[in-house]
Amino acid sequence: MKLDDDIALALRLADAAGEAIKPWFRAADSGAERKGDATPVTLADRAAEEAMRRIIKAEAPRDTIIGEEFGAEPGTSGRSWVLDPIDGTAGFLAGRPIFGTLIALVVEGWPVLGVIDQPILGERWIGASGRPTLFNGRPAKARACRALSEATLATTGPHYFDDHDGAHFMGLAAKTDHRRMVMGGDCYNYAMLASGQLDVVCEANLKLHDWAALVPVVEGAGGTMCDWNGDPLHSGSSGHVLALGDPARLEDVIEALACHH
Amino acid sequence: MKLDDDIALALRLADAAGEAIKPWFRAADSGAERKGDATPVTLADRAAEEAMRRIIKAEAPRDTIIGEEFGAEPGTSGRSWVLDPIDGTAGFLAGRPIFGTLIALVVEGWPVLGVIDQPILGERWIGASGRPTLFNGRPAKARACRALSEATLATTGPHYFDDHDGAHFMGLAAKTDHRRMVMGGDCYNYAMLASGQLDVVCEANLKLHDWAALVPVVEGAGGTMCDWNGDPLHSGSSGHVLALGDPARLEDVIEALACHH
Repeated sequence: MKLDDDIALALRLADAAGEAIKPWFRAADSGAERKGDATPVTLADRAAEEAMRRIIKAEAPRDTIIGEEFGAEPGTSGRSWVLDPIDGTAGFLAGRPIFGTLIALVVEGWPVLGVIDQPILGERWIGASGRPTLFNGRPAKARACRALSEATLATTGPHYFDDHDGAHFMGLAAKTDHRRMVMGGDCYNYAMLASGQLDVVCEANLKLHDWAALVPVVEGAGGTMCDWNGDPLHSGSSGHVLALGDPARLEDVIEALACHH
Repeated sequence: MKLDDDIALALRLADAAGEAIKPWFRAADSGAERKGDATPVTLADRAAEEAMRRIIKAEAPRDTIIGEEFGAEPGTSGRSWVLDPIDGTAGFLAGRPIFGTLIALVVEGWPVLGVIDQPILGERWIGASGRPTLFNGRPAKARACRALSEATLATTGPHYFDDHDGAHFMGLAAKTDHRRMVMGGDCYNYAMLASGQLDVVCEANLKLHDWAALVPVVEGAGGTMCDWNGDPLHSGSSGHVLALGDPARLEDVIEALACHH
C-alpha cells in the first residue's frame, strides 16, 4: 500500500522534527532571531526542517520539498512534501505547548495526507484521504453544530487580518457564540476542531505550509475545509481558510462572512 | 510559620480542584451550560470550587471565601481566599490545556499568596510575599527587556476590551514587537511571564478572582503588576491590569498605553 508507506514516512518526519524542537522549548536562549520580514524564527524551526529534509531526500528523492524555512526544492514525481516545522512560532516563543509541526503530502495541488504533531504534549493527529483521522491512534471525530449561534469560533488573532478581512471576520464572529470565541492557537485550533472541541476556525493570509496538513486531518474527522467563498483549498488558493466541524453549517458561515461588521 | 501553613493549604486546594477538573477536560459532554450573562461555565468549574470551599471551611473557618462561581461567604479573620476554579473557561471548553486554577490569599485587600495551577500538564506556580516564586519546585524568573520595541505582548483577546480600552491597548501594541504578540492564554500568559517567556500582559475588565493570584507569582519572579495608571492592584482596583517581566519598562508601557491608536 503506497499510502501506508507515505504515512509511515510522515510519522518518521514528525518524530525527527519533535526531537529537533524539544530541546529549544522554553530554553533560556530560545535562539530567536529575525528574518527580513521580522517573522520570529528559531533555531528549532530550522533544525526541525533540516532533519525532515534529510529524511525525504534519502527516502523519497524524486518528491518536491516545500518548507517554510528553506523554500522549494523541485522534484520530478508530481508529489510535494509541504513542511511547517513550527506552526505557531509566536506561541512557541511565548512558552505555549500548543504549537505544532505540520507535514503534508500534496499531489497535483491537493493535500492527500496531513500530520499535526505537538511534540511537547505527545499529541499527534494523522489524516489521509479516505481514511478516518487518528488522534494518538484513536479515531478523532468533529462534532455536530445545530446552529451557528451555538458555534465556538477560533482564530489566531485579529492582527493577522487586514482591515477588510477583519470586518468580514467580525461579521462571522457576531453570528457565533461570541462568549466562547478563542484567540491564539494556530494549528491547534484545527486539531481541536477535528477532536470535537470547537466548531469553526476562520483565518486569512495563510500560506500553503500553514494549511495543507490541516485539510486531511479535518476532513477525515468528518469536518470540511474551504476558502472564504466555499471553494475547495488547492495549492493556488488565496490563503483565506475556513474549517467547520459540521459541514451542515457551511452555508451559514459563508453567508455570515459575506457581511461586514 | 503561618505563611508556610497558608501555602500548604493553598496547595491542598489546588490538588482538590485539579482532581475535580481533570475528568471534564475534553469530555464528550463537557457539562457546558449558560449563566444568565452567557459566560460559559462548566460542571468542572463548580465541582472544583465546591471542593476548595469544603477544605477552607474545615481548615480555616474564620476566613472569607470569594469564588467566581458561588460568590462571597464572609468570615471574621480579615483574610480572604479568592478562587477562580477555571480561569480561561473558553480555552478549557476549546480543549486547550493552558487554562488555570487560581487561588489567592488576600489580606486587607492585598494579595499575599497566589497559586496558578495547570492540572492537565501538572504545572504549578506558587508566589508568596517576600519569597521567590516557584514553578514545580524550582525558582521562576521573569526576564529582562531592554526596550519596549523588543517586548512580547500578550492578551487574551481584543473582544474583552471595550472600544476605548481597545484603542489604548493598540497604542501599546504598536510600540511592542507586534510580530510576536500572542492572543488567548488567560492566566497562562502571566505564568509564562513569570517563567521568562514573555514580557508584558495587558488586560481590562478583570475581576479580583482573575488577577489576585497572579500578583504574588509575577512579583516573586522579579516582575511587577499594576493597573493601567501604574498604581498597585488592590481589591478595589478597576480591573485594568498590567504585568511586566522587567519593572524597568513600566514607564514606557504606561506612556504607550496612554496613546490612542
